[in-house]
Amino acid sequence: MRIEGRDYRTIWLDGDGRRVHVIDQTRLPHRLETRLLSNCVDAASAIADMIVRGAPLIGVTGAYGLALALADDPSDAGVDAAYASLLATRPTASNLRWALDRVRATVMTAVQADRRALAYAEAAAIAEEDVAACAAIGDHGAGIIGDIARKAGRKINILTHCNAGWLATVDWGTALAPIYKAVRAGVDLHVWVDETRPRNQGASLTAFELAGEGVSHTVISDNAGGHLMQHGLVDLCIVGSDRTTRTGDVCNKIGTYLKALAAHDNGVPFYAALPTSTLDWRMSDGVRDIPIEQRSAREVTHISGKTAAGAIVEVQLTPDGSAARNDAFDVTPARLVTGIITERGVCRATEDGLRVLYPDLATP
Amino acid sequence: MRIEGRDYRTIWLDGDGRRVHVIDQTRLPHRLETRLLSNCVDAASAIADMIVRGAPLIGVTGAYGLALALADDPSDAGVDAAYASLLATRPTASNLRWALDRVRATVMTAVQADRRALAYAEAAAIAEEDVAACAAIGDHGAGIIGDIARKAGRKINILTHCNAGWLATVDWGTALAPIYKAVRAGVDLHVWVDETRPRNQGASLTAFELAGEGVSHTVISDNAGGHLMQHGLVDLCIVGSDRTTRTGDVCNKIGTYLKALAAHDNGVPFYAALPTSTLDWRMSDGVRDIPIEQRSAREVTHISGKTAAGAIVEVQLTPDGSAARNDAFDVTPARLVTGIITERGVCRATEDGLRVLYPDLATP
Repeated sequence: MRIEGRDYRTIWLDGDGRRVHVIDQTRLPHRLETRLLSNCVDAASAIADMIVRGAPLIGVTGAYGLALALADDPSDAGVDAAYASLLATRPTASNLRWALDRVRATVMTAVQADRRALAYAEAAAIAEEDVAACAAIGDHGAGIIGDIARKAGRKINILTHCNAGWLATVDWGTALAPIYKAVRAGVDLHVWVDETRPRNQGASLTAFELAGEGVSHTVISDNAGGHLMQHGLVDLCIVGSDRTTRTGDVCNKIGTYLKALAAHDNGVPFYAALPTSTLDWRMSDGVRDIPIEQRSAREVTHISGKTAAGAIVEVQLTPDGSAARNDAFDVTPARLVTGIITERGVCRATEDGLRVLYPDLATP
Repeated sequence: MRIEGRDYRTIWLDGDGRRVHVIDQTRLPHRLETRLLSNCVDAASAIADMIVRGAPLIGVTGAYGLALALADDPSDAGVDAAYASLLATRPTASNLRWALDRVRATVMTAVQADRRALAYAEAAAIAEEDVAACAAIGDHGAGIIGDIARKAGRKINILTHCNAGWLATVDWGTALAPIYKAVRAGVDLHVWVDETRPRNQGASLTAFELAGEGVSHTVISDNAGGHLMQHGLVDLCIVGSDRTTRTGDVCNKIGTYLKALAAHDNGVPFYAALPTSTLDWRMSDGVRDIPIEQRSAREVTHISGKTAAGAIVEVQLTPDGSAARNDAFDVTPARLVTGIITERGVCRATEDGLRVLYPDLATP
């Protein structure tokens, strides 16, 4: 997608066919900088330090991390060690495991001499499949947006939480892909961007993406969405998902549940847009069963931004000694979700609904 | 209340019986500094620059500002000029007008030689009445907390939003008064402090207050409360209110409505604690009728904090050019409010419930 008129992906192979470039998302929106990942440790750090984030991009970065590891050590023990170190970076991201499993399964069938090439090919395939899946999610979701806009007969307002845009994937995004596709199809819309504390992925990444694509948007505090919905200022909510149960419970960035409650209370459609890889067919009760990552309290007590002089500075928000807690995700029960948008289409957020889209994957 | 072991109020008369000390709330939680108000201009600046904030404290500061003016010029013209300059600082603060009216009415009945003493006496009376009202709110609310703690038979968790503590009043506070009273009565409790974007009154002021009083607390992002409630980690919510309709709709800091939705969805009691002066008997539909202050977008796009070097610095959070919107309050419909705590007692958040507490004020 576009940044200042130039097209980017979030991750791409270097001309050497070995090393991997990523956009450093910790520097956005104030600096556009890229990082070069030269080995598995770089890839693991990029995931753990959230230089890359977003379930699909984490998966692709993990896959390339395993390829980088194999370039150094194609032995079984090397694969296992790299797999474990990459998996440990973000425990909640189910498609990190999925991507790592896929690369490992591919290389393990081959002799060591062939493993490096197979790993890079598999990582590239995962990346391209993600682009195609996100584009399809965009097409399906744009249909929903178009319907709402036609019925409204005016500029419509869409609220989104966190960043499930192209920066969270390889290209297009999940929750934002329908918005990009709709805007390119000529739909007149405006996006409310939840700032999404504590890491502010909305205020920094989603606003940055939308600005780059020229999409009309306004940043709001996470507290504001309910009030806007009460006053008819939200026509649709679209969020991403890090994991979704076979029953349609949606695990996404902390605070998603609160917006879903407000949407339900005000009759606003609430959709989750997600790739098939984030569906967890084993789980039926998301609130009970999905493990929620606890991140550093420092993300709550401190924040980074740009000073008037242009320096990026971290400041402390809380009193010295006050503790903080940082649950990174919450789970929105399926009863609050109007529908799920995947690359296969749109379905109700129920076990039956998902089974219609996924007769091959849903187990009875 | 206590700060580092020493008792404070937010405003107090100097030993000279003339000048007035206030805590500079723009410096909290990083600096504890007081300001000495020597004349009416100082008092007006303290209100306008939000060195003091919170409706009750603004009222008392205005009253003392008028007393300071009378100490310099007790003439009718002097009273009128001071009244006008103080009222202009926060024109929408109805409590400020009420306090100024009260002092002016008192002094205008007297000869000029007696006015100064009468004004100081009236300002002191307003302050003491506020302390008494907050203490009574605390006693009534502490009863609710004690009941919940006894039933739970363990340490309980209370969630609060924004700052409705002693820093918003003269002493005790409104939403926090029940917590202070309960802790002093030996109830074992812990407070979840919503940071309360965009002005972060929770992370800065509420956390600072609780630390000073030695109350166990943890700062959380505004997004986290719903998740905590889903997992049984919140036994009770208590918030303040800036205006409450005769039907029990509660207008409070933006985001309160989202917490009330989550409390309702998880069977968590949700109380609003407020002085009688914030009840608006004319209004029956808060979402429709209560005007919501739009504040500067800069409060969303920028934030202040303390650098590692100890400097207080403002940083920009959003991309250059991304717009922001800042609705300061929202309205929680009465159906989501378990009860209302005032200095008169506790009642249901309904027209009938309020009429029981206020047979003298509620109009049929």
